[in-house]
Amino acid sequence: MNRDGSSGSPIGLHRVVEPPGVLPQAAWRLDADPHLWPDEVRLRVERLNLDAASFRQLSEAHPGDPDGIRRQVAEIVATRGKMHNPVTGSGGMLVGVVDEVGPGSPLGFAVGDRVATLVSLTLTPLVLTDGLVRWDGRSEQVPADGHAILFGRSVAAKLPDDLSAELALAVLDVCGAPALTARVVADYCALRAAAPRVLVIGAAGKSGSLSLAAARRAGAGSLVGLVPTQAEENRLRAAGLADEVAVADARDPVATAAAVGEGADVVVVCVDVPGAEGAAILTARPGGTIIFFSMATSFSAAALGAEGLGADVTMLIGNGFVPGHADMALNLLREEPAVLDLFVHRLNRLDLSSTVSS
Amino acid sequence: MNRDGSSGSPIGLHRVVEPPGVLPQAAWRLDADPHLWPDEVRLRVERLNLDAASFRQLSEAHPGDPDGIRRQVAEIVATRGKMHNPVTGSGGMLVGVVDEVGPGSPLGFAVGDRVATLVSLTLTPLVLTDGLVRWDGRSEQVPADGHAILFGRSVAAKLPDDLSAELALAVLDVCGAPALTARVVADYCALRAAAPRVLVIGAAGKSGSLSLAAARRAGAGSLVGLVPTQAEENRLRAAGLADEVAVADARDPVATAAAVGEGADVVVVCVDVPGAEGAAILTARPGGTIIFFSMATSFSAAALGAEGLGADVTMLIGNGFVPGHADMALNLLREEPAVLDLFVHRLNRLDLSSTVSS
Repeated sequence: MNRDGSSGSPIGLHRVVEPPGVLPQAAWRLDADPHLWPDEVRLRVERLNLDAASFRQLSEAHPGDPDGIRRQVAEIVATRGKMHNPVTGSGGMLVGVVDEVGPGSPLGFAVGDRVATLVSLTLTPLVLTDGLVRWDGRSEQVPADGHAILFGRSVAAKLPDDLSAELALAVLDVCGAPALTARVVADYCALRAAAPRVLVIGAAGKSGSLSLAAARRAGAGSLVGLVPTQAEENRLRAAGLADEVAVADARDPVATAAAVGEGADVVVVCVDVPGAEGAAILTARPGGTIIFFSMATSFSAAALGAEGLGADVTMLIGNGFVPGHADMALNLLREEPAVLDLFVHRLNRLDLSSTVSS
Repeated sequence: MNRDGSSGSPIGLHRVVEPPGVLPQAAWRLDADPHLWPDEVRLRVERLNLDAASFRQLSEAHPGDPDGIRRQVAEIVATRGKMHNPVTGSGGMLVGVVDEVGPGSPLGFAVGDRVATLVSLTLTPLVLTDGLVRWDGRSEQVPADGHAILFGRSVAAKLPDDLSAELALAVLDVCGAPALTARVVADYCALRAAAPRVLVIGAAGKSGSLSLAAARRAGAGSLVGLVPTQAEENRLRAAGLADEVAVADARDPVATAAAVGEGADVVVVCVDVPGAEGAAILTARPGGTIIFFSMATSFSAAALGAEGLGADVTMLIGNGFVPGHADMALNLLREEPAVLDLFVHRLNRLDLSSTVSS
């Protein structure tokens, strides 16, 4: 049923409860009422995929206490009308089935479609009804029941038939990273008539492996992958996605610069730990570009760190939206067996692991 | 006197006390010992210029209490060995006179030179010895006595003879903004063979007015200045730096977009209040570029805000270092009477005002 006579805002301003006048992402609390405005869509929620920085923070706040994590996530959603971690400022995404489509919705979905949201949970009205009882609290993939609302201008994708929902969700969660990496690398090639050296920090993870593959296709000259452990080094070497693999803790800029050696023209930051800004700045060549995808990035640490080192680098805030990003990322997974392998390994590890890992 | 036999790091790693292994900017505490390493320079401090976001935070934490502000700044410096506001993560800069030059210093200074640091106070070892007794706590310009250390790779500028120290310091504090704005506008013109529409948010302030003048010189097609009050509107109109002047609170994205009207190809964010990310994203055209200079910018709010609006915009972290930035900004002040007028007005207002203002 639609709200009588009223017309909502395509960006969801009508769902902002407090403070008034801000965008849904900036709001402390959203109205998650299941009744639709004319251009909205309601989903029956199946699964949340928490942002990696948020899940790490929650896990560290409740070490070895799945009940505590469950309770806190449920409380955040009940309080804010959305899954918006107040500490990290980040959210994640979700998968659900279309339950009702407002008559004015421009998204093209039909009742019964299985879709993933590509906008952050930090601006998606959400109600949970099952207390998250099916979630073991040990993985960022959260089985859940409830409903969520899409606005007229929300970005969402129908799940593909040829990939499992879990796999598709894991890819779509980070699909902005390979798309923006490809754009930056292609622009570099076009502007300088040269193939850039590209360094991916956190190269064996989801966004990292996709970014390596995307950079290669976009024309990168040489690819360096930085990983924190020997185990990840072995996996990344076996995958063959990078020309060189370096091992260092990205929170240690000096050790990272030593491990990477020659500086890079494009540095892509995909780790989910705070404190990687210095390593990125130290490993970028003068005139180079850094793309920060980690939601744990500190704006002031990046800005002041570059200034403090007298580093003439262009630093981009990784925008999760680039036109065509979902299809591009899904195709990379379909066409690059090495990326698929890393994703499958990562998903299995998360399901089996009893501790947090990056 | 130099430390015997040891050779320091040009980026000051040897001054990091805790945590070990991080860059000076990321450190919780620096060693501000006055004894120099071979490539260092020691300054006798005359004046600190607190970053606007930091000063605003301190003022709001101690409303109408100059003693409280003084005490807190002194405590931060005593505790951390640098003026690094733990809440905002930002610092500012300082002016001092060269007291001693290490034999290996590459900076080219001589004892007695009056210089301004162009690297943030967040990575400059600092000791204060006067309890800030000469500061009234009402302005971000802080008369102070003590010493500070420059590393081999620190960026600093000799103060010009033709401008007052106060004026030069105010310009140098924000000199990264006009330089990066000019680069982005010039790149836009070169790549698209078109003159961009440029919006400066916070256009009557220090970095805002310089950015307007720099954008004009770099080839902007039309210039829009956004200000929060009628008084600033009048001043900016009289200055003639912008083709259009709009009035709105940048924390209200919807009102800002309505006031600005047509979207901009380049949006420059120069306000020092948190929460301007949404306004910047809503006022940028698809394919446009946003440069965030405000130290109050939230990385996650920008990244998730753009994603949530499905906004295909390039977002830059305003790097305070661009080669040649100091000379460029000082020349803008010398050659653009309207910029000089705004700076002089601002400095007078700060000295006379009894409350915080942006």
